[in-house]
Amino acid sequence: MRDDRAQVSGGDLQRLRQLNSLSSIRALRAARRPLTLTELAAITGLSRGSIVDVAGDLRERGWIAEVEPAPGSMGRPARRYRFRADAGHALGIDIGVHKILAAVTDLSGHMIASGRISVDAGAGRAARLDAVSRAVEAAMVAAGLTPADMWGVAAGTVGVVNRQGEITRVEALPDWQGADLLGHLAELLPCPIAVENDSKLAALAEQRFGVAAGVRDLVYLHAGRRPGAALILDGRLYHGYGGGTGEVGLLRVTGWPDMARHLEECPVAEGAPPEDAAALVFGAARRGDAAAKAAVRAYAEDLALGTAAMVLTLDPELVVLGGGFSRSADVLLGPLRRALEPHCLRVPQVRSSTLGDECVVLGAAGFALDRIDQRFFSPEGAISRPAAPLRTT
Amino acid sequence: MRDDRAQVSGGDLQRLRQLNSLSSIRALRAARRPLTLTELAAITGLSRGSIVDVAGDLRERGWIAEVEPAPGSMGRPARRYRFRADAGHALGIDIGVHKILAAVTDLSGHMIASGRISVDAGAGRAARLDAVSRAVEAAMVAAGLTPADMWGVAAGTVGVVNRQGEITRVEALPDWQGADLLGHLAELLPCPIAVENDSKLAALAEQRFGVAAGVRDLVYLHAGRRPGAALILDGRLYHGYGGGTGEVGLLRVTGWPDMARHLEECPVAEGAPPEDAAALVFGAARRGDAAAKAAVRAYAEDLALGTAAMVLTLDPELVVLGGGFSRSADVLLGPLRRALEPHCLRVPQVRSSTLGDECVVLGAAGFALDRIDQRFFSPEGAISRPAAPLRTT
Repeated sequence: MRDDRAQVSGGDLQRLRQLNSLSSIRALRAARRPLTLTELAAITGLSRGSIVDVAGDLRERGWIAEVEPAPGSMGRPARRYRFRADAGHALGIDIGVHKILAAVTDLSGHMIASGRISVDAGAGRAARLDAVSRAVEAAMVAAGLTPADMWGVAAGTVGVVNRQGEITRVEALPDWQGADLLGHLAELLPCPIAVENDSKLAALAEQRFGVAAGVRDLVYLHAGRRPGAALILDGRLYHGYGGGTGEVGLLRVTGWPDMARHLEECPVAEGAPPEDAAALVFGAARRGDAAAKAAVRAYAEDLALGTAAMVLTLDPELVVLGGGFSRSADVLLGPLRRALEPHCLRVPQVRSSTLGDECVVLGAAGFALDRIDQRFFSPEGAISRPAAPLRTT
Repeated sequence: MRDDRAQVSGGDLQRLRQLNSLSSIRALRAARRPLTLTELAAITGLSRGSIVDVAGDLRERGWIAEVEPAPGSMGRPARRYRFRADAGHALGIDIGVHKILAAVTDLSGHMIASGRISVDAGAGRAARLDAVSRAVEAAMVAAGLTPADMWGVAAGTVGVVNRQGEITRVEALPDWQGADLLGHLAELLPCPIAVENDSKLAALAEQRFGVAAGVRDLVYLHAGRRPGAALILDGRLYHGYGGGTGEVGLLRVTGWPDMARHLEECPVAEGAPPEDAAALVFGAARRGDAAAKAAVRAYAEDLALGTAAMVLTLDPELVVLGGGFSRSADVLLGPLRRALEPHCLRVPQVRSSTLGDECVVLGAAGFALDRIDQRFFSPEGAISRPAAPLRTT
């Protein structure tokens, strides 16, 4: 290796530039504020020459923008750049039993607009897919964007979803199993499309934007009429071999299969339809009704048993209480914490979901953004000019 | 970016060479056979010029060696190179209740020599640490190497180990909790040192060298007098927040806390000390004794219940039956498989450990090799001349 220059082939140089652009764009995005070239050079460890070169190139290609110097700065102010989160967009979809929600976000996951459609629990596959189409269209209209503006799409659906995005098992919606959701979305949107289980995406949302921000190991509890769970392990959404994770509640000894009866059989819910029982009981418990509080305690004890099975298996830092019942966290969280203690070696923190109704759709958009990242902002990616990428499903 | 050459700063070029060396060394190591420069260029995608340059440099620094051309090759044979697994060494240690086993391996995890010392279950902390010292010394003497030749060390121990390598909880050895194993090993060996739970390292060994080769999601069952489990998730050893993973058996409803009684209370084990009961019952079951077969079935049903809790939580591809009882897999595996079926959504494969007694020590060496990898063979690493790296504990 005598003469430096002579050793660098064109291909090698291309690769080097790709890596420099990548580290710069990542640094600007992570900073969440404009950076000067000096700051950028310090963070990336690149030479001043390379940074000037990379910044000009990325700006030319629309990935970063120069911002006005801070007002009142004296002398000749240093140029500052920001990541252009508006350079592209992602679409998240939440396909639930009672509603379809679609949301358009920018590249930082900020929600720009959404469309929501209520569907009947008994609606068939075709009607549900049609509602998906309309919710997606509504979200794009509201955002003033077209399918060509979407760089990535992810949909969260009830049921077990395998790595191919196929819906392999659904309890809640009999004729939804095997629905070609991927194919249906591919008709609507000319970009990469992903389908994942809704609780998994809710867990991802809590880690990205919610109560689990920064937590690397957590169990997300979906507490509702159909209890379930999802896992974030080592900072990443855990899918499992076939996607059927978090199903410990199917084990009879956990008490999950019929823990709802504690609420449905509570006197304060007498005569009410089962789907309303929980709200009535939580409400009565909130007002101090003794029978209701006992029912919530009994429910929490069953919930804690299945949760303890996951906690003892995974030793997570945090358990997030999500799902419909998390709206009553004020009366459920305490009993759940107390019921966990006798079972656990180390009782994890237990917090309630804060994202509520938008949890799944935000997680879906975040999931789509991850795959955009892999395409554009990874050593394997292509940091070309922003544009709707070719359909790759 | 007009003139290519002008854009490359010295620092950038250094980084580029590092990356080229890295991809070349990884390719040669993965190939597990000598490669020609043409093959190496094809695999790494590097230019011919870069490959010739990189190969010369890596050979100079002792990372790769040229091998004799295949005998009988006609004309001027192409030069071939292999990764020098003997360029450095790792040390694995297994600290069990009854034995200390230390093994020296090369950079590909191949065991070169080992030292083993039997210890009394009642041996105190000092006696156990002393046995560790002697086992380590014996292994190095047998390998004809010194502490300075060890690039990395990992020890697997009974008990819960946190991310700092501290032993935070031990059931089997009362006075082992809080033992400064890390500090003791640092006195013996001037290289990076890691301490991890023994079952976790056994799981790692099965995935690297055993029945779980290539499997990304698996539950490793430690079936023995003190049942436990370890997890490989998304291809990586899962540590959990505090290291207390795989403890679902502490949940009373799994039946694990006293499942050993099925074996100990079997008539064929009458009068025998509890630690011998299992072997007697498995042996009798092997010979067709009806009572023994019933006892094994009852044990398998409890084992399956706790296993199902993990399988339903994680949906793994494979369950590995490890631990002392895996020596009787011929009579235990069938009943375990059958007992899992009624509980699981999808019954994973169930295979028996093949590494037996060397499972933990091989996993420990593999764990040490991973960290050597991060130091030498990652973009952050330094591919300098092979040498015992500075102590960094």
